[in-house]
Amino acid sequence: MVMTDDVRASQRKSHFDLPTYLAERQTQVEIALDRSLPVIYPEKIYEAMRYSLMAGGKRLRPILCLATCELTGGTVDIAMPTACALEMIHTMSLIHDDLPAMDNDDYRRGKLTNHKVFGDDVAILAGDGLLAYAFEHVAIETKHVAAENLLKVVAMLGRAVGAAGLVGGQVVDLDCEGKSDVSLETLNFIHNHKTSALLEASVLSGAVLIGAPEDDLQRLSRYAKNIGLAFQIVDDILDITATQEELGKTAGKDLKAKKATYPSIWGLEESRCQAKKLVEGAKAELAIFEDKAAPLVALAEFIIARTH
Amino acid sequence: MVMTDDVRASQRKSHFDLPTYLAERQTQVEIALDRSLPVIYPEKIYEAMRYSLMAGGKRLRPILCLATCELTGGTVDIAMPTACALEMIHTMSLIHDDLPAMDNDDYRRGKLTNHKVFGDDVAILAGDGLLAYAFEHVAIETKHVAAENLLKVVAMLGRAVGAAGLVGGQVVDLDCEGKSDVSLETLNFIHNHKTSALLEASVLSGAVLIGAPEDDLQRLSRYAKNIGLAFQIVDDILDITATQEELGKTAGKDLKAKKATYPSIWGLEESRCQAKKLVEGAKAELAIFEDKAAPLVALAEFIIARTH
Repeated sequence: MVMTDDVRASQRKSHFDLPTYLAERQTQVEIALDRSLPVIYPEKIYEAMRYSLMAGGKRLRPILCLATCELTGGTVDIAMPTACALEMIHTMSLIHDDLPAMDNDDYRRGKLTNHKVFGDDVAILAGDGLLAYAFEHVAIETKHVAAENLLKVVAMLGRAVGAAGLVGGQVVDLDCEGKSDVSLETLNFIHNHKTSALLEASVLSGAVLIGAPEDDLQRLSRYAKNIGLAFQIVDDILDITATQEELGKTAGKDLKAKKATYPSIWGLEESRCQAKKLVEGAKAELAIFEDKAAPLVALAEFIIARTH
Repeated sequence: MVMTDDVRASQRKSHFDLPTYLAERQTQVEIALDRSLPVIYPEKIYEAMRYSLMAGGKRLRPILCLATCELTGGTVDIAMPTACALEMIHTMSLIHDDLPAMDNDDYRRGKLTNHKVFGDDVAILAGDGLLAYAFEHVAIETKHVAAENLLKVVAMLGRAVGAAGLVGGQVVDLDCEGKSDVSLETLNFIHNHKTSALLEASVLSGAVLIGAPEDDLQRLSRYAKNIGLAFQIVDDILDITATQEELGKTAGKDLKAKKATYPSIWGLEESRCQAKKLVEGAKAELAIFEDKAAPLVALAEFIIARTH
């Protein structure tokens, strides 16, 4: 052990090729998602579900799940059904969020939103179908995992998307629309639930599948909470600084909707600084895993890199 | 064994007091549902979820689940979390079906529908929240059940509500609205998926929890398919013959929407006759369970009794 931590960290960075890793993992996830949902009668609902599920995106949640499963001693194959379920749940939340009754968005990832193509009724059902299928898929397709661990993952997914997670965050978010006096506490609640809860479930589920010890789960949970919040701060920054073409969705939406955002409370510069601190904190949690954590370290840095 | 089957059947009927049984079970289910979902911050979403979940109804799905669990050797306690999950899923489907983008209904069980009270956005989220919570609840709260069996129940619930079940039936139903040439085959598809799938999951899950043998599951599955279809035929009949007060929801809706129904294909009298045949078939499947099946036999008869 002659290397200092700094040297080790810089070596680790230099050895790990994130773009190649992400491209490989995205391809694996796309293939698994494609196989998970064949089109059968009634075709319209499967086509609507697949339209949004296969619409690209970074596949960050599945990739986090696969990464922590490998980090804690598992394999990609073990975690893939859970990884797909996370993307189904995430996709369902996007379809429902985009509805006219909610955020009323016409574009998502550079394509027309689900309800613009299939109608509001089918979009609601496509979301419901994806949410239900996520649980069926994970329960049926997961192999070589203790049933007790898989049940913990089922509970974790349910909690992350329900009123104690994503849905709860979205309700408070809708309540705050147009309000200029939203507190930092409320803003944190919204994003801890709307964004971080599912990211945390993504990170933890990979480790829970193989029964990782409690202190590893605690570390991964703190890592996830940090990158979840950083992710949201960066999203808020990009809503101001990026163009619609870069985002693949309507830009400047938050400003138009007079939504409280981190930049609206802290300003752009302080928001960037806070996001950076959160990512540093996330990386510090992984120090104990040494080189094995290289993908998760790189993924944390990747979140910040989007602002530059 | 001196009694003939007929005498035994008539004795069984005379000994089993369905109204008392239903009232007791409804109370047990109401108490369990009430406890399952306390109101915490953000109150609005929990209130919206509870508004529909606690709005009464026959609690037929939970009661079927409890009954088959007891029939196959289990207890009410073992099946109660699954029973509650079934009612959460059923409630979610009602909330989303009633939305303006779907059936656009103002009343349900004699009360304003969820979106009329809480708004379309919160109603969508309340449905999502109930669906997600059903899986969390069943995974966390079920005790004394082998984890493998519980995973089968999770998969069964997911399948019953997703595109292979309820959602798939609803999509075909929406497609058929206003069409006068809907075939009996399509009508059967709609109801096998929209109604029977969740009823079948209700009946089977109680037995799957305790690992009932495959031939019992087959029998219960045929029982459930029969009562599911009978239930829908009776619903169609009641839409024509009952008043809004009796139904607790808008009456004559199918006629107004020019929906294909069993009475529109068969006429009222033949529809009643078909429903009766289905119920007789359902009861015949249970003969092997003898007196233990009294609640399920009475429940099958109860479905038909609604038309008189």
